[in-house]
Amino acid sequence: MAGPSCHCEHGWVLPLRWIEPPDGPAIALLDQTQLPARETDIVCTDVDALVDAIQRLVVRGAPLLGIAGAYGVALAAARSDDVVGAAQLIARARPTAVNLARGVDRALRAWTDTADPDAVLAAARELAAEDARASDAMAEHGLALVPERARILTHCNTGALVSGGAGTALAVALAAHRAGRLARLWVDETRPLLQGARLTAWEAARAGAPYSVLADNAAGSLFARGDVDLVLVGADRIAADGSVANKVGTFPLAVLAHHHHVPFVVVAPASTIDLATESGAAIEIEDRAADEVTALAGVPIAPDGSPAYNPAFDVTPPELVTAIVTERGVIRPVSRDTVRRWERERSSTGR
Amino acid sequence: MAGPSCHCEHGWVLPLRWIEPPDGPAIALLDQTQLPARETDIVCTDVDALVDAIQRLVVRGAPLLGIAGAYGVALAAARSDDVVGAAQLIARARPTAVNLARGVDRALRAWTDTADPDAVLAAARELAAEDARASDAMAEHGLALVPERARILTHCNTGALVSGGAGTALAVALAAHRAGRLARLWVDETRPLLQGARLTAWEAARAGAPYSVLADNAAGSLFARGDVDLVLVGADRIAADGSVANKVGTFPLAVLAHHHHVPFVVVAPASTIDLATESGAAIEIEDRAADEVTALAGVPIAPDGSPAYNPAFDVTPPELVTAIVTERGVIRPVSRDTVRRWERERSSTGR
Repeated sequence: MAGPSCHCEHGWVLPLRWIEPPDGPAIALLDQTQLPARETDIVCTDVDALVDAIQRLVVRGAPLLGIAGAYGVALAAARSDDVVGAAQLIARARPTAVNLARGVDRALRAWTDTADPDAVLAAARELAAEDARASDAMAEHGLALVPERARILTHCNTGALVSGGAGTALAVALAAHRAGRLARLWVDETRPLLQGARLTAWEAARAGAPYSVLADNAAGSLFARGDVDLVLVGADRIAADGSVANKVGTFPLAVLAHHHHVPFVVVAPASTIDLATESGAAIEIEDRAADEVTALAGVPIAPDGSPAYNPAFDVTPPELVTAIVTERGVIRPVSRDTVRRWERERSSTGR
Repeated sequence: MAGPSCHCEHGWVLPLRWIEPPDGPAIALLDQTQLPARETDIVCTDVDALVDAIQRLVVRGAPLLGIAGAYGVALAAARSDDVVGAAQLIARARPTAVNLARGVDRALRAWTDTADPDAVLAAARELAAEDARASDAMAEHGLALVPERARILTHCNTGALVSGGAGTALAVALAAHRAGRLARLWVDETRPLLQGARLTAWEAARAGAPYSVLADNAAGSLFARGDVDLVLVGADRIAADGSVANKVGTFPLAVLAHHHHVPFVVVAPASTIDLATESGAAIEIEDRAADEVTALAGVPIAPDGSPAYNPAFDVTPPELVTAIVTERGVIRPVSRDTVRRWERERSSTGR
């Protein structure tokens, strides 16, 4: 199921679609492992297929994982499967992104409240719609932090491919482009799985934004040359102290930004902030297979049997984070106190 | 010309061999672009072939480039080519490594002094032998800086593949292994050309050293976990102020090491120190082709026509360098003053 079905008429990327009966129930996922070479869908007709797709990163990115999790529960409900068991399976598919477990929980609540598959599907759809609105709000809040003629460095992929809408950090960068404020988007290739080179470059090219890809380790010389005005990254989980777990390679960028007095800004929906996780040290980091590092596109790049260190994420401490942009406003500076205050204000205004 | 001819009987790597008539004159180069998949030689029967091999990184690494440059001049002399023209061609093949121009100069001096091809060849052989002795001396000086049970992080490839002997930074790490002092060698894969994953891992595996390969951007989390005791890297040029040009990705490691109070040590022969280059800003940095970043092993990894930023080197300022280990002793701390003093002592002792 390839081709234009992956996208809305207005050219927006649609990384996940619900397929109704009689063709469904099923979840169609734009296969992100095949981009940019091929735009093909993978159709998941049961939860096992979805869990496999999540683990293989067919579908990825914190906000989208939440949405996929919710639709997964809706799929189990529509199939009259064991919904609670399915929810547990999906929630455990990747441990670091808090959004996955949250999306699953929300859909599961709809199930336990109603035992109605349509209500679960409605909850998943609502989550996706909320995420689209959150994208727009994050882009608006984030844009206020982008200077004129900005050279923005980003890592991994945080655009429409990870969202029900425009995404997080990349949504801000592309909003800056539309506002005539983006001089250059520096795209970290993001080894080992090259989400930057493959996906962010693809989204930037589609948007007509000026971009250049670089090996992750070349970012240092960009900072040294004074060619980076702002770093924008997403997050997979933000702890109560403001520590940010994000794609491996984020923390070194934060250290470089700090060393060069360049703002380092995290863009993430409020659902990424997990007050139940006390600090960065408490965030579980997913270790992935060695062959993601020792082979590339099926080609071995290290001697046979080479051991590899391959954490999927790293943790950036709050003192290196200039600001966290959420759909509910900006946390700045970032500390346990300011995160707590942000949460209190959010609760008191009922947002 | 594949197989055991690439190596001496004692298993040492021999990345360059001179071939005498009647099969020569020629220079056989272990094709480092094919490692670790295949151990094959490329035989250069003229200077154009050698220049091409240097530019394609068939032969690479600062000390070995010097040796290759000297042998290249010897080849031109043995073939009765235009030796001065050949020397200019070779010296310009790659701009950043000062050793290349120095090796060429030394062989050219032998030619202008004697007009005797055998004298030029003797000069090249002498340079290679000196480099082997320098490797041993660097390993000895460097070993004194390695703690017990050391977890050493290294970048790029700086072992026997870049040298007439055991190499520079990797020579120190493998000496530490033989001394029972190496708990783990962390091998940065070193994008874009993967000299770490391909070559350093290959050398470490041959030496039976405990190693793990990692994506360059995973080094940050190793530092954060406290799993790095020492960073050892080589250098392509060291300016008079102690600034170190080395493979791109070195500078971010220096910033990370500084941030985490981990010693950052550069290992390089004295010939790498170029007092004629006043400061880091004066070092010419080679920009290489975009497709080194946007494709891997011929497989495109970014959208067609993606622009890329691909500097081959970066520059680490002296304040981030804990020590420079040379065959003539250790410069520590590193500054314009200490580099000058080291040079004066070197000159006064006639070494």
